[in-house]
This record gives sequence, C-alpha cells and structure tokens, in this order.
Amino acid sequence: MNDQQKTWVLLFQCPDQRGIVAKISDFIFQLDGNIITADQYATARQGGTFFIRIEFVISRDRWNKQSLSQAFLPVIRHFGAHWSLFDKEDPLRMGIFVSQPDHCLFELLYLWKSGELKVRIPFVVSNYEGHRDLVSQFGIPFHFVPATRQERKEQELLAIAGEASDFLVLARYMLTLSGDFLARYGKDIINIHHSFLPSFKGARPYQQAYDNGVKVIGATAHFVVEHLDEGPIISQEVVRVTHRDDVESLKRKGKNLEKLALSHALLQYIDYRIIRYQNKTIVFEDK
Amino acid sequence: MNDQQKTWVLLFQCPDQRGIVAKISDFIFQLDGNIITADQYATARQGGTFFIRIEFVISRDRWNKQSLSQAFLPVIRHFGAHWSLFDKEDPLRMGIFVSQPDHCLFELLYLWKSGELKVRIPFVVSNYEGHRDLVSQFGIPFHFVPATRQERKEQELLAIAGEASDFLVLARYMLTLSGDFLARYGKDIINIHHSFLPSFKGARPYQQAYDNGVKVIGATAHFVVEHLDEGPIISQEVVRVTHRDDVESLKRKGKNLEKLALSHALLQYIDYRIIRYQNKTIVFEDK
Amino acid sequence: MNDQQKTWVLLFQCPDQRGIVAKISDFIFQLDGNIITADQYATARQGGTFFIRIEFVISRDRWNKQSLSQAFLPVIRHFGAHWSLFDKEDPLRMGIFVSQPDHCLFELLYLWKSGELKVRIPFVVSNYEGHRDLVSQFGIPFHFVPATRQERKEQELLAIAGEASDFLVLARYMLTLSGDFLARYGKDIINIHHSFLPSFKGARPYQQAYDNGVKVIGATAHFVVEHLDEGPIISQEVVRVTHRDDVESLKRKGKNLEKLALSHALLQYIDYRIIRYQNKTIVFEDK
Amino acid sequence: MNDQQKTWVLLFQCPDQRGIVAKISDFIFQLDGNIITADQYATARQGGTFFIRIEFVISRDRWNKQSLSQAFLPVIRHFGAHWSLFDKEDPLRMGIFVSQPDHCLFELLYLWKSGELKVRIPFVVSNYEGHRDLVSQFGIPFHFVPATRQERKEQELLAIAGEASDFLVLARYMLTLSGDFLARYGKDIINIHHSFLPSFKGARPYQQAYDNGVKVIGATAHFVVEHLDEGPIISQEVVRVTHRDDVESLKRKGKNLEKLALSHALLQYIDYRIIRYQNKTIVFEDK
Repeated sequence: MNDQQKTWVLLFQCPDQRGIVAKISDFIFQLDGNIITADQYATARQGGTFFIRIEFVISRDRWNKQSLSQAFLPVIRHFGAHWSLFDKEDPLRMGIFVSQPDHCLFELLYLWKSGELKVRIPFVVSNYEGHRDLVSQFGIPFHFVPATRQERKEQELLAIAGEASDFLVLARYMLTLSGDFLARYGKDIINIHHSFLPSFKGARPYQQAYDNGVKVIGATAHFVVEHLDEGPIISQEVVRVTHRDDVESLKRKGKNLEKLALSHALLQYIDYRIIRYQNKTIVFEDK
Repeated sequence: MNDQQKTWVLLFQCPDQRGIVAKISDFIFQLDGNIITADQYATARQGGTFFIRIEFVISRDRWNKQSLSQAFLPVIRHFGAHWSLFDKEDPLRMGIFVSQPDHCLFELLYLWKSGELKVRIPFVVSNYEGHRDLVSQFGIPFHFVPATRQERKEQELLAIAGEASDFLVLARYMLTLSGDFLARYGKDIINIHHSFLPSFKGARPYQQAYDNGVKVIGATAHFVVEHLDEGPIISQEVVRVTHRDDVESLKRKGKNLEKLALSHALLQYIDYRIIRYQNKTIVFEDK
Repeated sequence: MNDQQKTWVLLFQCPDQRGIVAKISDFIFQLDGNIITADQYATARQGGTFFIRIEFVISRDRWNKQSLSQAFLPVIRHFGAHWSLFDKEDPLRMGIFVSQPDHCLFELLYLWKSGELKVRIPFVVSNYEGHRDLVSQFGIPFHFVPATRQERKEQELLAIAGEASDFLVLARYMLTLSGDFLARYGKDIINIHHSFLPSFKGARPYQQAYDNGVKVIGATAHFVVEHLDEGPIISQEVVRVTHRDDVESLKRKGKNLEKLALSHALLQYIDYRIIRYQNKTIVFEDK
Repeated sequence: MNDQQKTWVLLFQCPDQRGIVAKISDFIFQLDGNIITADQYATARQGGTFFIRIEFVISRDRWNKQSLSQAFLPVIRHFGAHWSLFDKEDPLRMGIFVSQPDHCLFELLYLWKSGELKVRIPFVVSNYEGHRDLVSQFGIPFHFVPATRQERKEQELLAIAGEASDFLVLARYMLTLSGDFLARYGKDIINIHHSFLPSFKGARPYQQAYDNGVKVIGATAHFVVEHLDEGPIISQEVVRVTHRDDVESLKRKGKNLEKLALSHALLQYIDYRIIRYQNKTIVFEDK
C-alpha cells in the first residue's frame, strides 16, 4: 500500500435485499478505491437484516471523511441503511476505569505500550490510589476518584470521561454505573466480568463457581447496559478446573482468562469489527 | 503384572487427621499387596475431610472381596471411615435410557464394542422405538417404553432397571425422573445436559444459548438429583461459537461436546474415580 | 428461500486487482441472483492472489450449470480467473479407504446416516475384512482388497474408485498410495494423520509423541501428495497429555482428535469451502 | 496450619518396589509430621522407577533441614533413592536472561510483583539495554551484557549468574548457550521456545509455521540441554490460526502462548513439582 492511499472502514447495515454488495462495491470501484477485506452477515436467509464491514483504500488527496460520506449518501438512502465510516489512522480514545485488581490494567498498558492496542489513552480513573505510580510511568494521566458503593461520584467520573473519551473500558471496576451515567455518557462501555456469563452474574463470581462445583470457569467481555452483567457479549474465554481448585486458585486462573477476553474484545472493537444488534454482537474477527 | 495378582480399587474417606496414608499403605504392605496408584485430596488444610483412591494388586488366591474387607475393618473403624472396595475384573452393569437423539447412544455403543468402555450393558430403554435395530445389532436387549411427559411409566422403567443395573446413564433421555423413582432406584444416575451448567437449565438449552448470544457453548455430565439439572457436575466440555451459528448449528456443534463430556464422565465413573461429596464431585482423573 | 430458487457455490481466484467484487456481485445481481454469503481473501495487500467463495441463489428454471457458466465467461476472461461452480443439491461422491482401526469409519458412517455429512458413499474399501458387517448394515457396498505393504493392489483400488468417486477419504488407511496412483486417480484425497503435523510424520506417531515427552498431542487432516504426510493441512485438533499417558492412552485420546479433525475437514470440503493454494489451504469456515 | 508447623516438600525416586509409600508415610507419621498432599508415579507396572512428591508439615522448633535429612537417611538407604528436600519458606533465586522481546519479561515481573511467582529475582541480564528502565522500576538489578552471536560473553554471564541464582530463565533470550556454559553453570535453565516442539526448532519458528500452513501454533517451555530446543518439555500451549494469519499475526498470537507456557512451567518448577527423568519431565501439577 503506498502513501497516497488511505484506509477506511465502513460498517453498514440495512434490511436484507438483492444487490447490496454489488452496489457498495461498485461505488467504491467508481471512486477508484480498492476493497481490502469484506465480511458480511445476514440474520436470516430472507427478510433479515444485512450487515457488512468493508475495509478499503482510496486516494488520500482526493477524499476526506466529509467528502466520502457525502458521496456515499445516495447508496445509504437507496437502502435505508445505518452506517459508520472510520479513519484507520485516527485511533479511538479509550478511557480506563479500574478498581484495585491490577492484572487487566497491566495488560492493557503493556499492549498499548508495545503498539498492539492502537488507541489513545486519555486517562486512567481509579478508586484505588495505589495505581498512580504504575500509570504515571506510562505517561498517562491518573485520576483518583474515591468512589464507593455508597458514593459513586458519577458526576466527577462524567466530568473526566465525558468529553475526553470515545469509549470506556471497565478493567475490573468494581462499582456498577447507574442508568443515568450510561445515558449521559452515551457512548460504548466495555466491561470484563470474571465469570462465564450468563452464569454467575453479580458479586463474587469465583465463589459462586466454587460453590457450584463447575469443572470449567470463564471470563466474559461485554458491553455495559443498565441491567448488571446483561449487556451484549463480545468474547468469552474458558479454562478447566478441578475439585482441587479453591476460590483463590480459581481467581488466579481466572486472571489469564480476564486478560485474554478483554484484550481480544478491545482489539476487535478498536478495529471496528463489532456491531451491536439487539442484545447480541456481530464480531467480524480479524483472523 | 502376573496372573496371580488381582487388582482392587479402594475409595476411602474420613475426617482428616495425621497418619491415614501411613496406616492404609502399611496395611496393604502387610498383606503383601502393592500399591499401583494413589490419589488423595483433603477439603481443607485442617479439620476437613480426607479422600483417597488407591489401586493395588494382591494375591488372587489368598484374598477375595469378603476376606479383604474383613481384614480392612480395623483400619476403617480406627478412622471412622466411609469406604468401598471394587474388583476391577468385575465390570459394572450400566443401563441406558435414551430418547430420540441417537448421537450419545451411538458413541456409548461404539466405545463399549471397541472395549474402551468396560461395562456390561444389560439393556437399552427408549421411548423411541426407532433405536431397536441399532441396539439389537450390538446384541443388547432393547425395551421400548412409550413414556411421555404425561405418562412417565416409571413403574415399568423401574421393573427393567432396578435389579438389572448398577447405575443408569441418561444418554439424552428427555423426560425427568421423579424423586420417587430416584429414591426407589437408589443407585447413581448420570445425565448429559446439553448446556454449560448452571447456565441454561431445563428445556431447549441451545435455544437459550442462542438467545443469550454467548460466544462459547458447553455440555455437562452430572449426577441426577431431584432438582432438575442441579446434581453434582462430573465433567464439562466447551467450544467456541460465533454470531453466524444459528440454533441448528449450535445443536450440531454441541453433539460432539455431549459425546465427549458423557464418555469422559463414564470412563471415570466405571473406574471408580469419582466421589460425590456434598453437591460436588471429586474426580481422580485417570491421566 | 423458496423452491424456485436454487443455491450455487462459486469458487474464484485470480491475480488481485481493483473491482473484482464489484464485477462479480454486479454480474449476479444482473442475473436476478442473490448473494447469500461471500468470503474473500487476498494473499497480500498488493500484487497477491485474490480468492472468493460466493454462495448465491438464482432462478431454478432460468439457469442450469451450463448456462450459468456460459454467462459467467466474460467475467472469468476479464480477470484471467480459475474458477469452479458447484450445485449444492448435487452431493459429492465420497469413497472411503480404511484399514483395521474403525473409529473414523464409524464416525463418518454415523454422520452420513444422521444427515450431517451430505455426501453419497459409493463404496468402502478395506484391507480388513472385519468391517464388512458394519458397512453393510448401512447399506453401503463393501470391497475387501487385501492390500499389504508388499502388494498394494493399486490397480484394483483404482478400478473401484476411479470412476465411482469424486474424492477419496483415507479414514485411517495404513498403506501409502504411490505417486502413480495419485496421478491416475487425479482427484482430491483427504487423509487423517494421527499426529500434529509436521511433527511425527510416518509410522507410529503416538509412539514418537511418547518418546518425545510432548505435553500436547494432535491429529491432522490434510490433502494427500506424493511425499508422505506433507500435503496441505486442512484442520488440526489437539489435546493435553501428561507424563502419566502411555502409548495406549495417547492412542485412546487421539481417537477423538482424529474423528474431530477428519469430520471437520470433510464438512468444509463437501461444502466447497477449501481452496488448495501452493502447499497450503484456504478454508472459508462455515461458522 | 498454625505457626509452629513448617511446610516441606520431598521429591523422592527409586526403583519401584513394594512398600515405599508405607515406609515414607510411616516415617513422617513417626516424626509427628502430617502429609498435606502426595502425588506419585511409576514408569511401569513392574520393574520401573517410582517417583513421589510429598508436601508435609512438621514442628518448626524440632526440625530443620539438616536434622530432617539426617533422620530420613535410613529410608533413603533402604530404597537406594535419589531425593531432595525443600523448605517452602525459602524461595528460589531465579535469574532472568532476556533479549529485546519484552512480553515474557513483563509477565514475569508482573507475576513476581503481584506475589504469584514466589521467587527472588537477583538480576535481569539482557543484551538489549532498553529494558533497563522497566527492570529498575521493579527494584531489580539490571545488567547490560552486549552479547552477540559472534561474541557470547559467557564468561561475563557466568560471573553474574553462577553464584547468584538457583536457576535461570531464558525469557526470550535469542542466543544459544554453549555446552561449556551449561556445564559450568550446572543448574537448571528453563527456556521458552516460540513453537510447538518438536516442530520448528531453531530460528524463526513462526515463519516456519507460516510456511508449513499449520492450523494450530504453539509455544513450549523446556529445560535447556546442549542440543538446541531438544531439552525435556515442561509445558505447551496452543491456539488455532487460519490462512488469514500472516507471520506478524502469528507472532502476536504466539506472545500469549509464550507467556502462558513459561509462567505455568515456572509456577510448577518453583513449587518443586517437576522431576526430570531421561529426556522427559514428570510434572505433578498443582491443580
């Protein structure tokens, strides 16, 4: 790919009908663009909803987001589509909320530093002040907000996160966020829950897993909705356990699952591979 | 191992205390026996319950089940133990209940025929008559009992299974068994449930999994208790799924999980590797 | 999908260039066809080879294989493409070669009987006569060909398989086929090798795995080429093992892997989801 | 467990024979000790080698390493055993060698800091100076030794590592160590190799995996011996890949495997759960 070409991602959905791929691909062809990858899905053979993710390159000089969007409008209108267009050179701003457990935080900071997690991190917010040194070493602003179950300080959280982030990650943030916060923030929030949802919602999932004598435990990355641990699932990881595992060893084994499930979900999300649809997700995996 | 030696399995549990292993192993040594494998577990570092499974060989001529048990009594009494002694040459009689889905039935019959599943199969009972030919080809008695949700025919089931089997397998038997049946049968019953318990108990678990948009599905082999799908879990298998999987493809993928989880559970069970303890299982895996 | 529509699969490859998707999808649109799914891949961002699999429906009355192919010719020529068109209602004829081990044979017959493996099975050939009853119970012609390492009887095998099958499966056939046989048969042959290739090619792979003290074993389904166990890999399955596993238990655990890897490979193959490219495979997985 | 009790681990091996467990467990019982866990293995049913790992507690005041060892001598002599006795309160000193790739280094430092990896880390040695800041932040001495393929500086490495460490980890150290170094160091060295051994020994294993078109990749933690990548395997991790994965994405996916395989191996090693035997390992897994 030469430097005169710029890469865009189109996410597009509309009622399924004949000719969608033909129309969109022809449109890109007419603009002298080139499709790099395309991935599509329809919820049913007939009468369903059609989704497509197209990654394409096009002349950097001739097209910007506004002009591309403008040019694309007739196609959109023709199909009555919902759509978004993303500039792959313009990384999302990912705000991090985290409580005391630090394994997910560490993983995200490492992946970011090593260049795998291509985001900006405008801030890390925590109700545990002990993370300050770690976060500062990475050159990221740290905000200590001593939120508790009784005093969630959502006003303060919103002031920090509202404008400064494109989406939030709850990297083991142990307080729930109110429906009011979700509504006012108005953007995606991705949480890691330390169980294999829908099993073991809520508090102390490893204790619940232990009490139930399960032989496999899991972790789940999902979008946050108002009902606790019920948002659309993005990714899940699992590992075998035995009768010898006590709650402590479940927690220890679970840490790896949490890191894997969360980082996988984020890597898909920031590459615009996830579409929320009803209470589920469509994930056009990168591999 | 020479022919003059016979292999026994001892399952033993008692309040944890000092010297249990010393006493039992010395006892076997004194009888000129030899421990082949031993696996132990205690529920806590102090004050818990101690479990041990010992496989040992001993002179075929000098000892039989009765005399061995008799000789072992002082050790038992000393520790206030629960225990069982199993003759590895005397395979268990495994009765099979199955409804229309045939994949688990097929797997069990194949494993039995190939010599991996070392049991006797005194009968297969089904409320689907279509299995008669398959079962008969394996030379196993087949009983068609047209049980339904309204008319469970448990009297008839009990007449077939009660005396003739040491334990039962529900290899996708779609009717629940009443508490009364369980009490009167009085022996272990192992069920395969087509979900990752405790998620998706009850009917149509793949539909439930689909509706919840999970990214991993599972199957669970467990002991049957009166509360539906709540008995102690023995083994679980899982596999990744995506948004592209509809209910039909979940069912198809799930078949492999069901076969794996059930056959694994049975292979452990018939080798006396499973101890039920409270609402859980201790599984001394063979590998 | 209504009955007036018929489903086709197009596999298409050509030097990568702008506009391929646009051209093909427009072509299908112009014929009043409708794309059901499309999956594409290019070996490089620029200057590579482009591959696409398109499943589409089109009027049963207006189009048959010949007329469709004819209509498609201008597109083919324009891109200098290799391509194939498959009628999903016309299942492939899968010949089976098998030696004494019966677990893969059993699995294939079961999957075929249950309707999951949508093929015709014109014959099972074995150098072990003991499979005759099993195969006959399924109503499939069985040929006993007492081939040995010294006397491979390839002439006889070819007489049975050459015309009667569209591809062959070696479902644990323990003799290698000569380059001459491969050339004269001239169609795809899929083998299951009981190791994680490229480790442990050739004879007694479980013994090799044991001798190497590996902690994970595998099975590999691959296309057969003249060099033993070196053909393009289609699918691989793995499972953990420990120091406690002897060669016998590796074999036992491996059986499940072999069944899974082989059946997965076949399910992809018969749905025209596999493209051989150089010494590798592109597998457009169904889920 | 009360404070008057101290925990020891005994690793013991001898020619298999009757009465070993009885003798050892009785010995511990006679000293007023209590067995916490025991795990045993024999290489064959008869005439093999017997291995046992016993974790036991015993009076802190009455016994130290010397007196315990002394007391145990008669048992050792009776069986002609090899054995080691480890004090669980006395963590091993783990030296780290690492080249530029930092993912394993990061993981080890994180696990150490979080208290999961119970070792002392006397030094990190690297031929990449860029790790200095990271290592220093953790308060661990960092030595930059600019070793290259031409100039391995093993004298210098030995001066740093020889006395100061109980074992070494090559956490992606890209130079081989000579037989002379191994002999003079004389203690265990654990390496992480970024392939599923024995496939893809030596340089650029992900490139080799890519060229072979495998569908699963792996990572292997093993003891270092003079022949490159041929030492006894401790643990292996694997993950699925597809035709879409290029060498870069294999490397990225492989990082998680390397971290998991290495940290798992180390957690077993430092808890005295690994016995090297011939060219293999016996790993008495903690769960």
